[in-house]
Amino acid sequence: MSTALLTDHYELTMLAAALRDGTASRSCVFEVFARRLPNGRRYGVVGGTGRVLDAITEFRFGDAELAHLRSTGVVGEDALAWLADYRFSGDVDGYAEGELYFPGSPVLTVTGTFADGVVLETLVLSILNHDSAIVSAAARMVSAANGRPIIEMGGRRTHERAAVSCARAAHLAGFSTTSNLEAGRTYGIPTTGTCAHAFTLLHDSEREAFAAQVDALGVGTTLLVDTYDITRGIDTAIEVAGPDLGAIRIDSGDVGVLARQAREQLDRLGATRTRIVVSGDLDEYAIASLRAEPVDAYGVGTSLVTGSGAPTAGMVYKLVEVDGRPVAKRSSSKESLGGRKVALRRHKATGTALEEVVFLASGKAPEADGHDRYPQIPLVRGGEVVPDVPTLEDGRQRVRTGLVSLPWEGLKLSAGEPAIPTVHHTGEQ
Amino acid sequence: MSTALLTDHYELTMLAAALRDGTASRSCVFEVFARRLPNGRRYGVVGGTGRVLDAITEFRFGDAELAHLRSTGVVGEDALAWLADYRFSGDVDGYAEGELYFPGSPVLTVTGTFADGVVLETLVLSILNHDSAIVSAAARMVSAANGRPIIEMGGRRTHERAAVSCARAAHLAGFSTTSNLEAGRTYGIPTTGTCAHAFTLLHDSEREAFAAQVDALGVGTTLLVDTYDITRGIDTAIEVAGPDLGAIRIDSGDVGVLARQAREQLDRLGATRTRIVVSGDLDEYAIASLRAEPVDAYGVGTSLVTGSGAPTAGMVYKLVEVDGRPVAKRSSSKESLGGRKVALRRHKATGTALEEVVFLASGKAPEADGHDRYPQIPLVRGGEVVPDVPTLEDGRQRVRTGLVSLPWEGLKLSAGEPAIPTVHHTGEQ
Repeated sequence: MSTALLTDHYELTMLAAALRDGTASRSCVFEVFARRLPNGRRYGVVGGTGRVLDAITEFRFGDAELAHLRSTGVVGEDALAWLADYRFSGDVDGYAEGELYFPGSPVLTVTGTFADGVVLETLVLSILNHDSAIVSAAARMVSAANGRPIIEMGGRRTHERAAVSCARAAHLAGFSTTSNLEAGRTYGIPTTGTCAHAFTLLHDSEREAFAAQVDALGVGTTLLVDTYDITRGIDTAIEVAGPDLGAIRIDSGDVGVLARQAREQLDRLGATRTRIVVSGDLDEYAIASLRAEPVDAYGVGTSLVTGSGAPTAGMVYKLVEVDGRPVAKRSSSKESLGGRKVALRRHKATGTALEEVVFLASGKAPEADGHDRYPQIPLVRGGEVVPDVPTLEDGRQRVRTGLVSLPWEGLKLSAGEPAIPTVHHTGEQ
Repeated sequence: MSTALLTDHYELTMLAAALRDGTASRSCVFEVFARRLPNGRRYGVVGGTGRVLDAITEFRFGDAELAHLRSTGVVGEDALAWLADYRFSGDVDGYAEGELYFPGSPVLTVTGTFADGVVLETLVLSILNHDSAIVSAAARMVSAANGRPIIEMGGRRTHERAAVSCARAAHLAGFSTTSNLEAGRTYGIPTTGTCAHAFTLLHDSEREAFAAQVDALGVGTTLLVDTYDITRGIDTAIEVAGPDLGAIRIDSGDVGVLARQAREQLDRLGATRTRIVVSGDLDEYAIASLRAEPVDAYGVGTSLVTGSGAPTAGMVYKLVEVDGRPVAKRSSSKESLGGRKVALRRHKATGTALEEVVFLASGKAPEADGHDRYPQIPLVRGGEVVPDVPTLEDGRQRVRTGLVSLPWEGLKLSAGEPAIPTVHHTGEQ
């Protein structure tokens, strides 16, 4: 399906006007960045870069798209002819998926003609704002879970297609599995499932439901024990499946207390290796509060797909350079810095991040040593995605490395300042 | 594109287990409802019903979907054979799009075999939870705007496909236009656009940018005047376009003060009919606070697509009846009432809503008079969408009618109780 109409009307009318007066061919640099992190967050994690590259590749105005634009009169024939031939032919640099970002980090830089870059604005922002919001929330959950696996099960609480991208973002952050089958197909993410209360209610008794599930899925399955009475549910589960039952799931109540009681009961019944999965409106705070409880895995839904209070990353796509000249809006507090920027992330010798230095590509670079690195990498050259662009699995590793590099305050869940400051280096010392 | 894998893993493993023990063919009723409204909201608006009907129709397991399920071993051959032939053959009743809902309202009821209904759970919830969250927020904005038009421009702040559904939900609530071209194509929603700061920055001067835009789009266009200095921007806009300029847009600063100054300035310049469009992080509260200002239209983005603090409606899909017998989970505060429910909305003779009476379809119906009505309507019969199912435009009218029917407290933006109580009628007087 073409992604070309996932675009704001004004991108195309601006294109039409710029084609008409000749400015469409000016060399431009567009920059994606977040002015701030949401809600006292201490770091952001870039998500969606891989999807952006796919979307740019599929950004083609076919007959159906052109017919719609013609019939509605959005733009005239000159612009339609230009769009019919559109292939992005510029360059893209950016933070790899899974990279940490901070206020002002140049997360993505699009270089090309004005026409090349302006038509991609909406689509690029949609993907980065959504996916970065989800992966940023997910990373906090993974960090709070402290090595315990988290299952993504939030698809039912968000748009059906966004759900697939949420599963992808959760995987990127380090979730272990997803319930979303389309995410399994599209991205190869392992899918898992337990059981719903409906399955127990369908049967004449909990015992029959458990027996049917074990019969169909084996004793390694996860039985949902809280439909009627949890203690009796656990007894029945072990009677039916035996002490080798894979797991039980508790989806309601004070799951910390219930997990402790369930662990004791399971151990008494000899099911010492049966795992305990908890779910039910968990977020990073609830996960952290369960750290001392005998929980083996978390199921997370709503809070993941809604970005746990920050459903969008608030990134913007700004024109920062025209024919080599820095440009910027100047009327208000929304001011931003003109000119193409590059970032340098400084680290201590121990590997702990110190600051995000943002400087003009045209200016004098700040000094760097062997512990520092440049988070931007080339992603597209002359319209072609570069070979060896990082994979989703690379991103998963990058999230882990990034979280380890944060100063310890950066991993606190409470509201605070960004974990490292963004320093604008002017080139003048 | 098949919607079949927009489904949770466990729906299919439950199906497989139920096919194996014969319970898959039991007659079931599944009910969609919200236990509560989000965040002190006083009403909800149902969105997505039309999309649910499309999604059910497209819910087919084709070769590609079956091959994925086979290769990953999600279910065995018996379940795969059943899925290959799957066509929903049951009934669906529900609240039409644009209908108000309250805690416990039976927003959608799916009747069929267990197998028929269980596989639809995730997809139905994804659509209803997303679209209802957006239309519910949008209706508050429309109400706050008090007749002034609102332009939907939030696509860049949400998932690229969710953006299209957000534009649809905003239209349903009464927004006038959207920036999203795909929403224009898919749903026939009128699209509009103004201009971005990038277009001004692209040019050597604001004057040249304005001239190019007017040349390409005519004097009826909307010029964005806040790139450098708003007062000078307005002067330049009228010098370039003349007093017949369609509109100016202000996207930053204290838009109330700026709108007043701009109105005076435009009037002084003879541009008395040039409209003023404001945008920039507006939500329903900001819109309401601008009621006394000379604003002609609002552009709303982030707050719309994020549900203005409530990005999901939190609806659930619960099995409530098996072979005519009411069923319900009983272990916790998540308890719900078993049995298929019907709603009656009572009104005063003036048309003001009084209460949402929810009663068992199998019990004695509450008494009703000519002012009362039953919000549920038939949507699908024997797998076929009924003729004359309400359109999106019908829904737009239904939102208007619904808001008018609310007691006046119901339209307050502040947090409060649901505008009308939900009364569970037991049939015993």
